[in-house]
Amino acid sequence: MKYLVSGGAVWALAPEGGAAVNLSVLDPAFGADMMGPIGLGRDEAMTRAARLMKGAPRVDIADLRPEMPVARPGKILCLGHNYVDHIKEGGYEIPEHPAIFVRTLTSMTAAEGPMVRPKASERFDFEVELMIVIGKAGRAIPEEKALEHIFGYTVFNDGSLRDYQRRSHQWTPGKNFDRTGPVGPVVTDAGELGDAGDLRIESRLNGQVMQSATTKDMMWPVPAIIRVMSEFSTLEPGDMIATGTPPGVGHARKPPVFMAPGDVIECEIEGIGICRNTITDEA
Amino acid sequence: MKYLVSGGAVWALAPEGGAAVNLSVLDPAFGADMMGPIGLGRDEAMTRAARLMKGAPRVDIADLRPEMPVARPGKILCLGHNYVDHIKEGGYEIPEHPAIFVRTLTSMTAAEGPMVRPKASERFDFEVELMIVIGKAGRAIPEEKALEHIFGYTVFNDGSLRDYQRRSHQWTPGKNFDRTGPVGPVVTDAGELGDAGDLRIESRLNGQVMQSATTKDMMWPVPAIIRVMSEFSTLEPGDMIATGTPPGVGHARKPPVFMAPGDVIECEIEGIGICRNTITDEA
Repeated sequence: MKYLVSGGAVWALAPEGGAAVNLSVLDPAFGADMMGPIGLGRDEAMTRAARLMKGAPRVDIADLRPEMPVARPGKILCLGHNYVDHIKEGGYEIPEHPAIFVRTLTSMTAAEGPMVRPKASERFDFEVELMIVIGKAGRAIPEEKALEHIFGYTVFNDGSLRDYQRRSHQWTPGKNFDRTGPVGPVVTDAGELGDAGDLRIESRLNGQVMQSATTKDMMWPVPAIIRVMSEFSTLEPGDMIATGTPPGVGHARKPPVFMAPGDVIECEIEGIGICRNTITDEA
Repeated sequence: MKYLVSGGAVWALAPEGGAAVNLSVLDPAFGADMMGPIGLGRDEAMTRAARLMKGAPRVDIADLRPEMPVARPGKILCLGHNYVDHIKEGGYEIPEHPAIFVRTLTSMTAAEGPMVRPKASERFDFEVELMIVIGKAGRAIPEEKALEHIFGYTVFNDGSLRDYQRRSHQWTPGKNFDRTGPVGPVVTDAGELGDAGDLRIESRLNGQVMQSATTKDMMWPVPAIIRVMSEFSTLEPGDMIATGTPPGVGHARKPPVFMAPGDVIECEIEGIGICRNTITDEA
């Protein structure tokens, strides 16, 4: 099942394509964002959604303005170096342990909405990433049980200000400018994608392919990421986990490519959808 | 004015010492945690609290079990290297820009409650820090206006698992184990402490002084921290900002000192109070 949050409601994408059904209007248990389906549980939500969609009125998805899949996730953990060729292009050594950082809610924005280039820097780069949406709480989760804790997957663009990212050894500022990290619009449940272990992942800037890879290239695949993150932190329903970006980012290109106001950046993952945003200047 | 959150209510510490008044019971605007006084504004909260305390029934503060001052802060930003002698004891160079990282809500715990040493590591270290509580939203805040955005200050113990902190170049895991970061119990409003620019700051492990300094030693004083953090991120009411720790931490001692179950760690800042916790093993 594929979900989308818009207008304070959870929608299911219709199997015929191009249309969606407002689940929350038909069944209040679907709530105002993905915390509704997460609360129902992956299977129960899917069963209910499939039943509700039969004969229900459709809305053109082009008429829906996406919102953040989870309005206020408890935390957004990010795994930084996960595709070997991206680590090399950034000039880093292949690590024994993954680099983990945190994004704050103020740094996030919805798909389709403005992705903001700040006044402070013009070195604004894109990073397409598979993002995990946690369904069930857990700590010290072994890899073989990881899938039980995943509700589904969405698309994330880990927008980064490269100069601020490397001003100190901690990446936080460059990864946390206001509204630089779009997420969504579609959440595909993990019943459909399993461990998301071999999905095409691509970014396009103004239509030109910049990153193109498969999630099979991850050094730490999804079950390993769940193990690593839950080793130190209780994962809670609605938490989001970014899984790293493949090679082809702008700052590593010769000459470098950075995003400017008016540019359209699209991040697409097979089986999920496209996270598309237009770059705007900070007001 | 000095506040404390307990039992889903905001209390004011009585000026005669040792006692507190339940403000929320007398005036519902004080709410369930510090978001109440923050919503009222620093001056209005202080004026109302002072009026309500006159002749109001007192409770012995020893009978109050502290809770997190803000139950769900939007974000917890941490400035990592701020006292020169602590940077040197850790083997780092004096930086041009501060190291900034993020703590997640699951990593926090209340003063007086258990501070949890995880099964994964025994290298559990303490770090006393002044913590800012944001009162008014703002972005790109100049230093001369920083105080307008601060509601008050509390005490933070930035509990760190040193091996996990340095397993990669990003400190996140070692700074985010569940319930390793106690905060509170007292929030002193900024009307009383100003920019908190010269306060004694000290930690004691089982009564023995481990860190002892003054906030005057900060490389980035409070107004500079507000400027630096708001350069990339909108600070929102209830956000918390940790300001770095002075020298004397356990891992830099010869021989190193780490906290073990049963140990009592006290962090004290002049004009605010003592954040005291007993180390417990992960269940």
